[in-house]
Amino acid sequence: MYIGLDIGGTKVLGALFDEHGNILKRAKKKTKAIEGREVVFDQISKVIDILLENINKEEIKGIGAGAPGLIDSQSGIINFSPNLPWDNYNLKGEIEEKYNLKTFLGNDVNVGILGEWKYGAAKTLSNVLGIFVGTGIGGGIITNGKLYDGSIGAAGELGHIIIDPTGPHCGCGARGCLESLASKTAMVQQIHAQIRRGKISLLKDRIKESGGILKSSHLREGFDKKDDLTLEILNNATKNIGIAMASFLNILNPEMIVFGGGIMEELGEVLLPKIKAEASLYAMPKIYEACDFKLAQLGDNAGIYGALALVTEGVKNI
Amino acid sequence: MYIGLDIGGTKVLGALFDEHGNILKRAKKKTKAIEGREVVFDQISKVIDILLENINKEEIKGIGAGAPGLIDSQSGIINFSPNLPWDNYNLKGEIEEKYNLKTFLGNDVNVGILGEWKYGAAKTLSNVLGIFVGTGIGGGIITNGKLYDGSIGAAGELGHIIIDPTGPHCGCGARGCLESLASKTAMVQQIHAQIRRGKISLLKDRIKESGGILKSSHLREGFDKKDDLTLEILNNATKNIGIAMASFLNILNPEMIVFGGGIMEELGEVLLPKIKAEASLYAMPKIYEACDFKLAQLGDNAGIYGALALVTEGVKNI
Repeated sequence: MYIGLDIGGTKVLGALFDEHGNILKRAKKKTKAIEGREVVFDQISKVIDILLENINKEEIKGIGAGAPGLIDSQSGIINFSPNLPWDNYNLKGEIEEKYNLKTFLGNDVNVGILGEWKYGAAKTLSNVLGIFVGTGIGGGIITNGKLYDGSIGAAGELGHIIIDPTGPHCGCGARGCLESLASKTAMVQQIHAQIRRGKISLLKDRIKESGGILKSSHLREGFDKKDDLTLEILNNATKNIGIAMASFLNILNPEMIVFGGGIMEELGEVLLPKIKAEASLYAMPKIYEACDFKLAQLGDNAGIYGALALVTEGVKNI
Repeated sequence: MYIGLDIGGTKVLGALFDEHGNILKRAKKKTKAIEGREVVFDQISKVIDILLENINKEEIKGIGAGAPGLIDSQSGIINFSPNLPWDNYNLKGEIEEKYNLKTFLGNDVNVGILGEWKYGAAKTLSNVLGIFVGTGIGGGIITNGKLYDGSIGAAGELGHIIIDPTGPHCGCGARGCLESLASKTAMVQQIHAQIRRGKISLLKDRIKESGGILKSSHLREGFDKKDDLTLEILNNATKNIGIAMASFLNILNPEMIVFGGGIMEELGEVLLPKIKAEASLYAMPKIYEACDFKLAQLGDNAGIYGALALVTEGVKNI
């Protein structure tokens, strides 16, 4: 059996898997990020403890976990995490010490694409990109049938390709990254700017109702009701995502790009054809034709399945 | 012993290597591309014949070759070549049939970066990008210690990252690719546009003297003499190359980027600091700091050394 953990800024999801990848048990706790590192570790421990209840620990071959941040996949050290109180923190070591179980840790988005690659949309392919469009835009890269995480574990920051060097400032410090143009965070800024200019839209009320947060379901509603601003915002995002995909195609010539994240889960079947059409204008035709554009299949389970992939691959290579 | 071939649009370079990578003999012939496929094959054969003279063919372990175009590295089929009369052509098969020697064929730019990786600037590293700035802009990618050529052998088209979606039309059919903004071909267009607008520059005379061709040595002269237009053109190119490098850093987190090609050979020590400065404004700081920017070391020999790397790696994996 294996344990897979998906550690996020708000919650820790865990699953106990059998040898065939079936989920035997699930557990979930709040991360409590603002209460500090030790509380977060307690919360992670609680999830593991629930999964281990009434189980012979000898039967567990290892733990896999995905977490946000810049993580050295060799050492398991978290150099830095945007949403969790971790800085040069050896979470892998701490789990291994407490549970005496071999543990493998990876960046959450990389682990998510690993899940889609081993158990979801991109099964059996060698060269795959994953892009997750939500509050931010994350990505992951599989090359030659292996997760590629670069020299310090930071590869696959597909949301930080520069689309417009004079564009909006991005959280990463640069300007005009894809994330600054097409993430939900970017959309909220674009919506506020338009509303300040007098544009009328149901998005204004929806964002207000949910405490300043744009939900993917708001965009779905706006799209279904043909709300002008929604259509404009989505059109702008798909255009920029399409151009970014063209660059990724020319650079990496993948067999498939998998699209996940909240916005794609809600509106993927509408947005994907537009993204493809835009990409086809900018990518080399033979490279474009050689690539499938597919929606992710695992939804919220991508993280725990990816963690399973991480630990099964990891245990195999020991 | 091994044979390495660098097949270009104008000439075929060949070298005979001993087991330690020393060059025992060289040969060179014009490619004669306009005379058709059979003449080109004869020219390639002449180079091989010269290298094989007075050699016991039993001692040759194989032939490696780089050639321009979209090449399937598994089958060796050249799908398409921009400068040579090849279309769905099995050059590898034809060489193997004539010489009964195991042959490995790859895209010339990919093979060049393979050379820099195994014998040049990027020795012993696992994750490396190579970018060659000349008439066009080509590239190559090493991931996890292996040449990465994607799903149809077309990965590494680093010159075709989109920098400006509304920018100049590019030979590839898209707009605003790096190549359309910072290659010598792009520079010639920029120079003509400026000269038509009345700008005075020594580049006008130099290009005229050399039959419409911009040579890297012209840019060197313009730079040394502080020619306004030259400085403007170079500044524009380094800015765009720097932005592209930032995107590559965020996507691929390499340990090193190697810069080669005519312009970098002539002006690399001047341009590289400017490219780095621009990249540092757009790349994630930790990723930027983890990457070395280096000039290529093998010059015109990158192709034959890369071909040697291709055949030695290939023979090892049979």
